Amino acid sequence: MPSPREASASLQKKMDEVVTAVNKKITKLLPETDLHEDRLFEAMRYSALSGGKRLRPFLVVHSANLFNVDPRRSLRVAAAVEFVHCYSLIHDDLPAMDDSPTRRGKPAAHKAFDEATAILAGDALLALAFEILADPDTHEDPRVRIELVKQLAHAAGPDGLCGGQMLDLIGEHEEFDVGTISRMQRMKTGKLMAFACEAGAILGKSDEPHKKALCNFAHDLGLAFQVTDDVLDLDADPEETGKPANQDAAAGKSTFVTTMGKDAAQMRAEMLVGQAKRHLKVFGNRGETLSELAEYVLHRRA
Amino acid sequence: MPSPREASASLQKKMDEVVTAVNKKITKLLPETDLHEDRLFEAMRYSALSGGKRLRPFLVVHSANLFNVDPRRSLRVAAAVEFVHCYSLIHDDLPAMDDSPTRRGKPAAHKAFDEATAILAGDALLALAFEILADPDTHEDPRVRIELVKQLAHAAGPDGLCGGQMLDLIGEHEEFDVGTISRMQRMKTGKLMAFACEAGAILGKSDEPHKKALCNFAHDLGLAFQVTDDVLDLDADPEETGKPANQDAAAGKSTFVTTMGKDAAQMRAEMLVGQAKRHLKVFGNRGETLSELAEYVLHRRA
Repeated sequence: MPSPREASASLQKKMDEVVTAVNKKITKLLPETDLHEDRLFEAMRYSALSGGKRLRPFLVVHSANLFNVDPRRSLRVAAAVEFVHCYSLIHDDLPAMDDSPTRRGKPAAHKAFDEATAILAGDALLALAFEILADPDTHEDPRVRIELVKQLAHAAGPDGLCGGQMLDLIGEHEEFDVGTISRMQRMKTGKLMAFACEAGAILGKSDEPHKKALCNFAHDLGLAFQVTDDVLDLDADPEETGKPANQDAAAGKSTFVTTMGKDAAQMRAEMLVGQAKRHLKVFGNRGETLSELAEYVLHRRA
Repeated sequence: MPSPREASASLQKKMDEVVTAVNKKITKLLPETDLHEDRLFEAMRYSALSGGKRLRPFLVVHSANLFNVDPRRSLRVAAAVEFVHCYSLIHDDLPAMDDSPTRRGKPAAHKAFDEATAILAGDALLALAFEILADPDTHEDPRVRIELVKQLAHAAGPDGLCGGQMLDLIGEHEEFDVGTISRMQRMKTGKLMAFACEAGAILGKSDEPHKKALCNFAHDLGLAFQVTDDVLDLDADPEETGKPANQDAAAGKSTFVTTMGKDAAQMRAEMLVGQAKRHLKVFGNRGETLSELAEYVLHRRA
């Protein structure tokens, strides 16, 4: 077993590799054009290539690695998942939503361009994600492709991202209990993260027990991610997180931290990460990379 | 050959039948909930059940009829296409876009609810459209389902609706020639109409020549529809169209009418409809319904 320091260095290397590979894939999927409407593609590229840890692409690629999936395939799905994530960030940042001027340390899309272009760039990234999944380059088996579409659409739609963001907006005028916050975060974050892991299993034509194990892992990881996000929102350095500190409390939103307190939230995140890692046991040593990622989610500073 | 009056009455009956059937299907796909975030579903229902001629559902159902497709299947695709159409209307009406306070004679979604809810309702309708297509209830053959997803995603994305709307916004500050207006309208209207017709052929596992004939029909019809829309925008009665008159010219937009003049535009629409109808010849008498619809598009008052 490597020491924590070694593990962290090796994980960082793997994370960097995913960032490089997925950026290359995104650049290829969103080439520069000389079309009259190039402004739309420019806004899509701006948002999809604006940095970020690429946690979801990492989950797709390394879940797929468990089943020896060709990275050319998993990277297409990784890009599609990241497009959906970016679309949701662009729309969440809009003045009518969270009204956030910055994202990942840069002006949000509606500031760098304008509101109309930002709305359209989000819309276009969402549609393009499905076009990518439906292409035979993603997998030669149409059953695999349609299963990917079905699960991603579910994670993105009214029972996933959109419903979660609606709850988030309702939460500005209403105090939520921990159960409702958990449900909201499962919809806002958990379902797309779960899809990222499940996608690896779908691409690898996994049996049900291994797919289920990955989904359970992703579910606990997603919740742990959100709890630590709430903790970070409270007292993180804006230079590190790329967004203003204490944004949620300022907007009067109920979060795990405002509801449970910081210490209980931190303990809950630790419990969830422990639980997440236990789901990986069925993969033996091969689950080590995802397990290290779960530790990273717990201890990250941004 | 029936007289124009008889044809019109029989077409109206068929149009009414599609409206009734698709509204029933949409109501089933968007049931009332007691979820905390029901406001989102309410806004989706408001927009998707707010009337309209259901031209795209009509095209799906009657293209599918040419291949004897079970209406339970074609109506699911019809609902998905209408969801994508409604999503684009909701977003186009937003203050940051066309800033239109009314739609189909009622307050636009962002007026009836609020901007954030309208944006999310549009997003959710788009994602849900793909979830519907990916469901085995739409067709038991995954190759059929994935082809539907691929073509709809293409029509909705940066090379379709989103790109067309981007061009439309650019056109507020720039004069377009007829070629650019045609390209914009093909992206904004033509591609989704073409998909509506192609979907019938995909569901019916049509051979290539018949599919191609339907796509050509839809292409000409879509352009004719847009030309007549521009003519109607100029001088229609707001009571009939459900939107303010002369909206495009007021926004300084280039349209077929502002560029070609009203008479040339009307002639072009007639030429396009004639061309559209000729593509249907391969279907013999069975193409009569779609042919009548093309005539209707030319002579409609709203």
